[in-house]
Amino acid sequence: MAVIRCKAAVAWEFNQPLVIEEVEVAPPQEKEIRIKVRIVATGVCQSDLYFLSKCSNQTAFPVVFGHEAAGVVESIGPGVTEFQPGDTVIPLFMPQCRECRLCKSPKTNLCVNGSAGKIDERSFERSRISCRGRKLLQFLGTSSFSEFTVVKEMSVAKIDPAAPLDRVCLIGCAICTGYGAAVNTAKVEAGSSCAVFGLGAVGLAAVMGCKAAGASRIIAIDINPDKFEKAKVLGATDVVNPNDHSRPIQQLLQEMTGGGVDFSFECIGNVEVMRSALESCAPGWGVSVIAGWTDMENFSAPPIHLMTGRKWTGTLFGGFKGKDGVAQMVKAYLDRKLMVDEFITHNLRLEQINEAVELMKNSRCIRAVLSVSPQ
Amino acid sequence: MAVIRCKAAVAWEFNQPLVIEEVEVAPPQEKEIRIKVRIVATGVCQSDLYFLSKCSNQTAFPVVFGHEAAGVVESIGPGVTEFQPGDTVIPLFMPQCRECRLCKSPKTNLCVNGSAGKIDERSFERSRISCRGRKLLQFLGTSSFSEFTVVKEMSVAKIDPAAPLDRVCLIGCAICTGYGAAVNTAKVEAGSSCAVFGLGAVGLAAVMGCKAAGASRIIAIDINPDKFEKAKVLGATDVVNPNDHSRPIQQLLQEMTGGGVDFSFECIGNVEVMRSALESCAPGWGVSVIAGWTDMENFSAPPIHLMTGRKWTGTLFGGFKGKDGVAQMVKAYLDRKLMVDEFITHNLRLEQINEAVELMKNSRCIRAVLSVSPQ
Repeated sequence: MAVIRCKAAVAWEFNQPLVIEEVEVAPPQEKEIRIKVRIVATGVCQSDLYFLSKCSNQTAFPVVFGHEAAGVVESIGPGVTEFQPGDTVIPLFMPQCRECRLCKSPKTNLCVNGSAGKIDERSFERSRISCRGRKLLQFLGTSSFSEFTVVKEMSVAKIDPAAPLDRVCLIGCAICTGYGAAVNTAKVEAGSSCAVFGLGAVGLAAVMGCKAAGASRIIAIDINPDKFEKAKVLGATDVVNPNDHSRPIQQLLQEMTGGGVDFSFECIGNVEVMRSALESCAPGWGVSVIAGWTDMENFSAPPIHLMTGRKWTGTLFGGFKGKDGVAQMVKAYLDRKLMVDEFITHNLRLEQINEAVELMKNSRCIRAVLSVSPQ
Repeated sequence: MAVIRCKAAVAWEFNQPLVIEEVEVAPPQEKEIRIKVRIVATGVCQSDLYFLSKCSNQTAFPVVFGHEAAGVVESIGPGVTEFQPGDTVIPLFMPQCRECRLCKSPKTNLCVNGSAGKIDERSFERSRISCRGRKLLQFLGTSSFSEFTVVKEMSVAKIDPAAPLDRVCLIGCAICTGYGAAVNTAKVEAGSSCAVFGLGAVGLAAVMGCKAAGASRIIAIDINPDKFEKAKVLGATDVVNPNDHSRPIQQLLQEMTGGGVDFSFECIGNVEVMRSALESCAPGWGVSVIAGWTDMENFSAPPIHLMTGRKWTGTLFGGFKGKDGVAQMVKAYLDRKLMVDEFITHNLRLEQINEAVELMKNSRCIRAVLSVSPQ
């Protein structure tokens, strides 16, 4: 198999525009798969943006971002048994090897092969993408802002070929993360009350998950009222802009619900909001789930908040085991049991990547979907 | 009914020795019960000591401490239906009214009538104990460092008259708190691994709870190796002194267990240890329970610790609904299914209260039991 030369959006430096470059994508090696990326999504509050322009201490450059995508298998390396060229797939930023002690446990979607985004010298060595003689880091092992990428077999989910790739790409991150935070991690109960903080794609998916789980009250919270209409479409029964109220949001929610919500979700990545979400929960049994990512600060709270019986937990990819969860969620979409189209506010081409980044930086989109290698 | 004049240990000022005084205990009013306190316990790491000499911003003086006790009903006020004079009882610092939305929920042992130790002007007004013309605050509504005390009917558990009061008094706080943290709050699973931080009475009771739940590995941790022998008696399979190791305790525990314990318990009230206990838990499913009390500092941790699937929660009185839980635990003791005698290291008289306080300040006892009004 030959090296493929193709286009990719390369991030050469921290907080600089991405540059469309010709890159070389090496053939897949042992248990690897080369994917022709058809569609890649990018949206508000996303990890790509976080690592590109917020979190300077963790990111290494140059790097090819993108981890919420869909495509077609171009070629497979030695030892690959689960895929054939032509299969439609969604790459996974959290692998599912099916063999480790974590994959074998029904309690978690972690896999011992997951790097959790850890970056070291070997991360560059392992990359299959290079440009101008330099290896480009593969962000979260995926790098879907490229016409082709190479990922491990354990990090690819096969999906129904009938699925429209320009929609189901969102199942590769935001929709599973938010929806699963409600149905898998919190295990929202029928008739319960829920509060969702932050109405980006993850938060909106959490709203949808709460509704699917039968919550009778779903309070959607954002400081941008433009998000409220969509939140209602997805199942919110109440919408609240904290800026409209003089008292703290947690106090307001305690009052609205007569003692606190049963379940709350932080879908922003802000440690102050994480604490508000915890404090909005009912003492005795309230569960608060952290679904928004940050590693710049620690959350904190007084011990009594937990001693009174609240539970604080969090989620990566909504607790879905990657291969199983993605296939199941794509099926749910095809069966019209899951909304996805509603999350897509912009359709652009890969060359417009910086426009998409600006849209998300300015909270002007839920998800912008980029066409990478049209069929 | 008449006012009773009797002895009590009065705390007139913050961080000063208690003074044995003659106090007046008013007759019980509507739905109140006056108890002849036979036995009161005090021990290491206890809330009495915390409020007496650590936490200056929360305590109001003068106050009568003591909340882990057993006694006999002396008289009952109007409207009391559940008790008769002569009943043997354990006062509860967390009421169980059986009528509120919290009491009716199987998910919590909170009661809307619980004050959680909140102190305001009305707390003094409500007190039935006075001395030299001043009302004395009833600590946690109990005040058992007194020959007689008056508590609400909802804050008293009736126990089997066959129970030895000088033993089962410990069921009124430490033993339920630690044991319940394991069996009720964490719901420790058979075959699991557990770590207990801090081997005061609460921690030792947590060890016992882990064993009762069938844990196969119970790692008991303390910087005082004098506690280890008792921990082994109660079920610890391993004992660790963090001072014997150069690497952090959480790293040591991760290594000892091949990835972290399934359940951990903080039984000290130290926010740094709370974080260590969380970090000792297995990513994916580890549950960490805060059973040690402090309100002087907040705990903190990076969001990824929870996003990787750990759960952080806490407990008051081990999740036991007071009336039900105490009666059930006393029965378990009488049925020889629960160890209690092993927690008692000293037997003293109420007059020796300051000696008991010194013993606990210097970690020289597990529990000192004070005889208050011998039969």
